Amino acid sequence: MNNRKLTMLMDFYELTMANGYFVDKKHLEIAVFDVFFRSVPDRGGYAIFAGLEQVIEYIQELSFSEEEIAFLRSKKMFSDGFLDYLRNFTFTSDIYAMKEGTPIFPHEPILVVKGPIIECQLIETMVLLTINHQSLIATKAARIVNAADGRAVLEFGARRAHGYDASIYGARAAYIAGVIGSSNTYVDYKYQIPAIGTMAHSYVQSFPTEYEAFKSYAEAYPNDCVLLVDTYNTLKQGIPNAIQIHHDILAPMGKHLKGIRLDSGDLTYLSIEARRMLDEAGLYDTQITVSNSLDEYLIKELIHQGARIDAFGVGERLVTARSEAVFGGVFKLSAIEVDHTLVPKIKISENVQKTTTPGFKQVYRFYGDHGKAIADVMTLFDEVIDEKIPYRLFHPDYPWKSQMVENFTAVPMLIPIFTKGKLVYELPNLTQIRAHHRKELHALWPEVLRLENPHQYYVDLSQKLWDLKQAMIMKYRRNEG
Amino acid sequence: MNNRKLTMLMDFYELTMANGYFVDKKHLEIAVFDVFFRSVPDRGGYAIFAGLEQVIEYIQELSFSEEEIAFLRSKKMFSDGFLDYLRNFTFTSDIYAMKEGTPIFPHEPILVVKGPIIECQLIETMVLLTINHQSLIATKAARIVNAADGRAVLEFGARRAHGYDASIYGARAAYIAGVIGSSNTYVDYKYQIPAIGTMAHSYVQSFPTEYEAFKSYAEAYPNDCVLLVDTYNTLKQGIPNAIQIHHDILAPMGKHLKGIRLDSGDLTYLSIEARRMLDEAGLYDTQITVSNSLDEYLIKELIHQGARIDAFGVGERLVTARSEAVFGGVFKLSAIEVDHTLVPKIKISENVQKTTTPGFKQVYRFYGDHGKAIADVMTLFDEVIDEKIPYRLFHPDYPWKSQMVENFTAVPMLIPIFTKGKLVYELPNLTQIRAHHRKELHALWPEVLRLENPHQYYVDLSQKLWDLKQAMIMKYRRNEG
Repeated sequence: MNNRKLTMLMDFYELTMANGYFVDKKHLEIAVFDVFFRSVPDRGGYAIFAGLEQVIEYIQELSFSEEEIAFLRSKKMFSDGFLDYLRNFTFTSDIYAMKEGTPIFPHEPILVVKGPIIECQLIETMVLLTINHQSLIATKAARIVNAADGRAVLEFGARRAHGYDASIYGARAAYIAGVIGSSNTYVDYKYQIPAIGTMAHSYVQSFPTEYEAFKSYAEAYPNDCVLLVDTYNTLKQGIPNAIQIHHDILAPMGKHLKGIRLDSGDLTYLSIEARRMLDEAGLYDTQITVSNSLDEYLIKELIHQGARIDAFGVGERLVTARSEAVFGGVFKLSAIEVDHTLVPKIKISENVQKTTTPGFKQVYRFYGDHGKAIADVMTLFDEVIDEKIPYRLFHPDYPWKSQMVENFTAVPMLIPIFTKGKLVYELPNLTQIRAHHRKELHALWPEVLRLENPHQYYVDLSQKLWDLKQAMIMKYRRNEG
Repeated sequence: MNNRKLTMLMDFYELTMANGYFVDKKHLEIAVFDVFFRSVPDRGGYAIFAGLEQVIEYIQELSFSEEEIAFLRSKKMFSDGFLDYLRNFTFTSDIYAMKEGTPIFPHEPILVVKGPIIECQLIETMVLLTINHQSLIATKAARIVNAADGRAVLEFGARRAHGYDASIYGARAAYIAGVIGSSNTYVDYKYQIPAIGTMAHSYVQSFPTEYEAFKSYAEAYPNDCVLLVDTYNTLKQGIPNAIQIHHDILAPMGKHLKGIRLDSGDLTYLSIEARRMLDEAGLYDTQITVSNSLDEYLIKELIHQGARIDAFGVGERLVTARSEAVFGGVFKLSAIEVDHTLVPKIKISENVQKTTTPGFKQVYRFYGDHGKAIADVMTLFDEVIDEKIPYRLFHPDYPWKSQMVENFTAVPMLIPIFTKGKLVYELPNLTQIRAHHRKELHALWPEVLRLENPHQYYVDLSQKLWDLKQAMIMKYRRNEG
């Protein structure tokens, strides 16, 4: 967290509730909270989980300073006992989570907190904020990388991000999901995410002529000479000048023009013409990068139109996830201990999709012998799945829709991160997270990965969990009637 | 900036350009850059300028550490002279800006930097990032506050913000534009923005019954008892329990039920019924707060439908500006000094709206004797407007559309912030910024403030500036032909 003191970054109600629990002497009751989301942004088939590393950093550093305690005391709402509790705060809960970079699906827990209810409540806001932000951007980036179909995608959005963290952690999330670099120098400095960038129009304008601007740049960066060719007239002037610079400056030094960038105009037409002109000049290896309000839809369309583009610089529409700027992760109570026994809790809603799934749960991802993911199954946490026995998958809303699976591997997706407050998870580095992401994404069928009208990946319930949920719904209905 | 070291948060091309200028020995040439935007989000009639305070903090703290210099050296792209320049970096430029909270309009400069081109370039990313983010949220908040038509609006979006800064500075920007508080405790702690919040559904669920949960809360907070009434059944159980708590717990203590909150269901119907039930119980002063994916459109519709709501809690759609998550502020070269004379620069685009307005400029806001704003006029910086003489306003694209104005006041909107690197602006506090915002917003005609199909506020050019721009366009066209 960059040594920032963000303890007070929590919804005020976390504090009023925590004090309420404390005053009522129920603050140490063990509760289970699930983080899950209800729908994939942009009607996509999957989302990408990101932000776990920052959740871990937050929890490890969580403490209440005297200054913060004094501030809370000034509100005249909190008991002295509660403020003492905060002063001596120690995190003692268990946290389970999916690995960063994992494709995730609606309704399944992606992070579970089990511990004193007061601790669960105090971390709620930051856990959601961190996961919602990074998962939003990782999901959007995965869509854009998918649309680019093997071509490079660069994250260029710093100037339009929602604040400094949005640029930094947004670039991190995008990198997890496959972009190859970022314009933001900070993320190279801190996270070794390659920083990329050449010049703005103002550079070209600050010289008497475009040729002089290019010459200055080529002399300064003979190894990394990428020229922005659209300040004046791309085809009549920009590209010819770039080619001339290659011949006049770079070739004599034994170097070559690394690339050109197009930032305006008809990118399909201009890139085709640019490729032709560069090839005619023998500059076969000079790459064409384009930018200008790109997103997955425009990229797909450019490729479909036959544009000759090697790399896409994607700015505001990636870093803000403009097409759907909200990732709706929630933090819901699923069980609470009464007399040393975990009692499942459910939140019923008239909207069936909003009724929660009760109990302390695990998620298994089933892979077939083809290596592809078949379905996720939510189970009670201690259920054991025997891979040697055929397993019946069934749709939780339409249980008559079922299939038997054999020769599968069932991998528990929620792994221990903190146990009794102690970090037990060895954090992977970004390279490892990217590799995990690629592997798990490739385990999904192409039909699930489609941008439009994807196949809905199955998230099922085990028989035991389904029975429990139905029984609780029935009981609630009887009491209500 | 919270003592963070964000120097490396800049687009990498700022550094490659800066080094290019340095190597070319033109880094100390004086340039003028304008920050402006091209269109109002959500097809609105105005935007709200915010973020200046953080721009100032950034510039005051800007320095390059040995660790950062070493990182840049490792890129093997930057000259030793340039790295020495960074090591000894001192900001020496002038900055002019509008006051925070001011309504702003497309194409007019809202912040101007005049100084060595290398400095302008190095601060570009952070200036844009800061202003784009806070102006985006302030603009959205102003729309929402406008829709609420005098009712309170609360900022509840922390858990869906794009990172920590998005929550913190988003709440700050929303507060500037009229929300009365935030769920984020941090902004109360740091900025004295009132933190607001009561309880989540999990609090109610963690007790055996809703009544017991309410009782616990009322006993803990007799002075601030706001109860969330929709965990089970709002009308049959939640509101009756809340009223009972008033009678059983609060009234005997001489207190009263401060409010209830509705977070689901048909908010119009439920709020009308809630008001009726509360009134019948004599709880005329108990306030009704609602939340649940609200924005300016839903709020307007709820009011239109006759909902009985005292306060709106607005979350994800405010803090992410979901309907248009991008504020497109840009940073464009408008002049550069050659032989000690500022030479205006223009960037021509096929898209007329994207052609920049050249020169070092001032913006005057014309107010009529009714106190309302008539138009903004961009002028050359040193033009003097004599308020005693009638002034001809004319449309920059259709100059035959003109009008003479008399008895006006012409207020220069760009005021000195830094002069030769020294802060010369006395920063207002948030209360003063809010008051300035309210005053300037009320100076706009209601037609400009409309949510849908607003009247387009005039942003004109002075005759001198218009002549300059036309001459430069003509010259460019001749050269091109």
